[in-house]
Amino acid sequence: MNMVDIILDKRYGRELSDEQIRFFVSGVTDGSLPDYQISALLMAIVLNGMSDREMTTLTLEMAASGDQNDLSYVDGIPVDKHSTGGVGDKITPLVLPLCATFGVQSVKLSGRGLGFTGGTVDKFESIRNFDINPDAASYPQRIKDCGMVISGQTPQLAPADKVLYALRDVTGTVDSIPLIASSIMSKKIAGGAKAIVLDVTCGYGAFMKDEAKARELAQAMIRIGNLAGRKTVAVITDMNQPLGRTCGNVLEMKEVIEVLVGKGAPDVIEVASVIGAKMVSVAGKAGDLEGDELIEECRKRLTDGRALEKYLDLIISQGGTLGSNGLPLYVEQPFEEMKVPAPREGYITKIKADDIGHISVLLGAGRMRKEDPIDYGAGLCFYAKVGDKVRKGDILCSLCHGENATLSEDVLFDCMERVLDAYEISDEPPVPAKAVIDILE
Amino acid sequence: MNMVDIILDKRYGRELSDEQIRFFVSGVTDGSLPDYQISALLMAIVLNGMSDREMTTLTLEMAASGDQNDLSYVDGIPVDKHSTGGVGDKITPLVLPLCATFGVQSVKLSGRGLGFTGGTVDKFESIRNFDINPDAASYPQRIKDCGMVISGQTPQLAPADKVLYALRDVTGTVDSIPLIASSIMSKKIAGGAKAIVLDVTCGYGAFMKDEAKARELAQAMIRIGNLAGRKTVAVITDMNQPLGRTCGNVLEMKEVIEVLVGKGAPDVIEVASVIGAKMVSVAGKAGDLEGDELIEECRKRLTDGRALEKYLDLIISQGGTLGSNGLPLYVEQPFEEMKVPAPREGYITKIKADDIGHISVLLGAGRMRKEDPIDYGAGLCFYAKVGDKVRKGDILCSLCHGENATLSEDVLFDCMERVLDAYEISDEPPVPAKAVIDILE
Repeated sequence: MNMVDIILDKRYGRELSDEQIRFFVSGVTDGSLPDYQISALLMAIVLNGMSDREMTTLTLEMAASGDQNDLSYVDGIPVDKHSTGGVGDKITPLVLPLCATFGVQSVKLSGRGLGFTGGTVDKFESIRNFDINPDAASYPQRIKDCGMVISGQTPQLAPADKVLYALRDVTGTVDSIPLIASSIMSKKIAGGAKAIVLDVTCGYGAFMKDEAKARELAQAMIRIGNLAGRKTVAVITDMNQPLGRTCGNVLEMKEVIEVLVGKGAPDVIEVASVIGAKMVSVAGKAGDLEGDELIEECRKRLTDGRALEKYLDLIISQGGTLGSNGLPLYVEQPFEEMKVPAPREGYITKIKADDIGHISVLLGAGRMRKEDPIDYGAGLCFYAKVGDKVRKGDILCSLCHGENATLSEDVLFDCMERVLDAYEISDEPPVPAKAVIDILE
Repeated sequence: MNMVDIILDKRYGRELSDEQIRFFVSGVTDGSLPDYQISALLMAIVLNGMSDREMTTLTLEMAASGDQNDLSYVDGIPVDKHSTGGVGDKITPLVLPLCATFGVQSVKLSGRGLGFTGGTVDKFESIRNFDINPDAASYPQRIKDCGMVISGQTPQLAPADKVLYALRDVTGTVDSIPLIASSIMSKKIAGGAKAIVLDVTCGYGAFMKDEAKARELAQAMIRIGNLAGRKTVAVITDMNQPLGRTCGNVLEMKEVIEVLVGKGAPDVIEVASVIGAKMVSVAGKAGDLEGDELIEECRKRLTDGRALEKYLDLIISQGGTLGSNGLPLYVEQPFEEMKVPAPREGYITKIKADDIGHISVLLGAGRMRKEDPIDYGAGLCFYAKVGDKVRKGDILCSLCHGENATLSEDVLFDCMERVLDAYEISDEPPVPAKAVIDILE
């Protein structure tokens, strides 16, 4: 088998055989294929596409390119969730304990934030003494004890995907349904999931800016999941404004507590209830409940204290420190440095979530390069969201940093200007947006 | 400027600006661009194409990436010819002296053979003591003395094209009209040509197997030439059978003499007369002659001894040795080792020229790798060509090697079998093929 022939086949629009895809992924993994041949094939895939069979084989070969988690100690069907990225997305810390109230056991491997989307690992790390990298050998005992483990992704999962991703980033081949879909699915499958719930975001703050593209990606992943024998459900969610009331690590973990004690924002509750319901369902733990009834039951458990109890179990299990009030303590306290007032009266019609994500990075909540340090206390609090009516001078949002951090006047001023650009205020109220746009399965 | 943005623009089908193409070629030339980004862009160009302006800018930038010959010492418009490759193609040694009879002065830079097509450098090297690499400083004097110089291509011409070509070869991006056209034209322009005559071959023995593709390539090069201010004419020629009566270095140079003394094969005379006429015309040396009249005049001068005289001048000018009969002596004598008889009676309807090219390489006349040695005496003589009627046992062709070389029985037997595969004999005569299919300008 010869890499040039494989490139030529894809270049001329022919379907690659399983053997060809296997040869490719194995050459990527062991480093025997030169980068220039890999990138030529990636561009040919981007422009000529892949069939469902090709995507599925690519996914499974990448999943098999490194370690594969064996989750046979989990009771029921091991389920994993994945979000294609959002701003203010605190769904994982909510749905894990929610699912646990149904007896769903979860081993959740998560990533750090990079660019304008946050990462679940950074969020849990903002809890004092929380161990985000527990020894893998301890997972079965932890599952037995509290039903949940959360961990930073191990570097041995799907190494072929890592090589391809790094190359895609510098060769203009990131935005490609077959490559995105197989990348996501390969990591989930290597992580041991037998069922997968995908939160496919769309809008300003998402990788997929429009709904049609988000649906296309969701459907591709569902087809891969089905062909690979993993029950897969996708929830299309709105990311045309940040999710919930905060963006930033400690800020979001505090918002998680608000949700769990029944004081959360409706959009967060809605998305968490739907994602949670789908996870419970595909994990085979929904009993007789299904559809809207199951979502309603999730909403109840999420906000009536039952999920909170599980959440605190998880934090205790991984060494996190609770305060005298029984709630987590954080590595930093957010300090509201500046409140941004509305420049005019009207209805909020847009809060460009990607801009908000960039502002939070400027404030120190995120990183542009892997090695950048972050300020866990930094971020934004949203006082007004899409659909709200404001008068001139009403607070739109505030800019925060950690108590122990400082921010220059220049950065604050730049962020304030950007906030005013990100918020669109009009005379007419916007068409009401739904947090959950659709459920595909 | 950023290479990823350039790749993305081409990926999404947007036209690249002159500045972007300049950035790309300069990064290719100085080695600052990594191979994987170059190959990603090449694949995007292959699949999304290039506008005429993009191709022209790419051509001119590649031409400017190294040395550029200054041919201002040439009387008239410096003209160059280029063939896209053929089997048995001995047109260059014929048209140079032919054009010289009209006062056209030529500095011809040629390549060596690689794969199944021969190279003009190898052909001239088969003349004893012929100096194929005369000092560039001597060109003006040589032009003054005999009107012609022929030389192996210098490595400093269009170095960007060399880098791209090497990468295209291993990334499945060779077959692409914009990339082939700009590669050819960049070398001609760097060589100093102000007018260009292209011999675009099509058929089994050519890179372009079908006429439509050959026309497409020809037209792309004509458009580049016109936009770059170089009058460009393309002659589409048939390469569905080898050109003329021989294939191999000394064999072809002997056939050149036959043509020049009026005993040549009609197809060779036809192609050389048309190419020669176009060269004379674009060089501004045709006087009042044009069209068929000029071609007819070329045919006369090619075969009545006038071109022969110029040809011998060139050989003497570059140190080649003439024998007592006044004709060139060769470094080897071809020895006819085996005659291949027709297996049946009928009309020759095909002689697959690519197969013939491969056989000649097996016999030692060509090389598969740059560093392979060649046998100047090796090759094939064609006794029967397309349209000829043969009886069973009539000689189709013979297999030759140099007097000082030997060939194993295995190779000879293999070559004979391949000859029988390459010759197609049918009961019905074929539709007569024209050596010159069309002239585009």
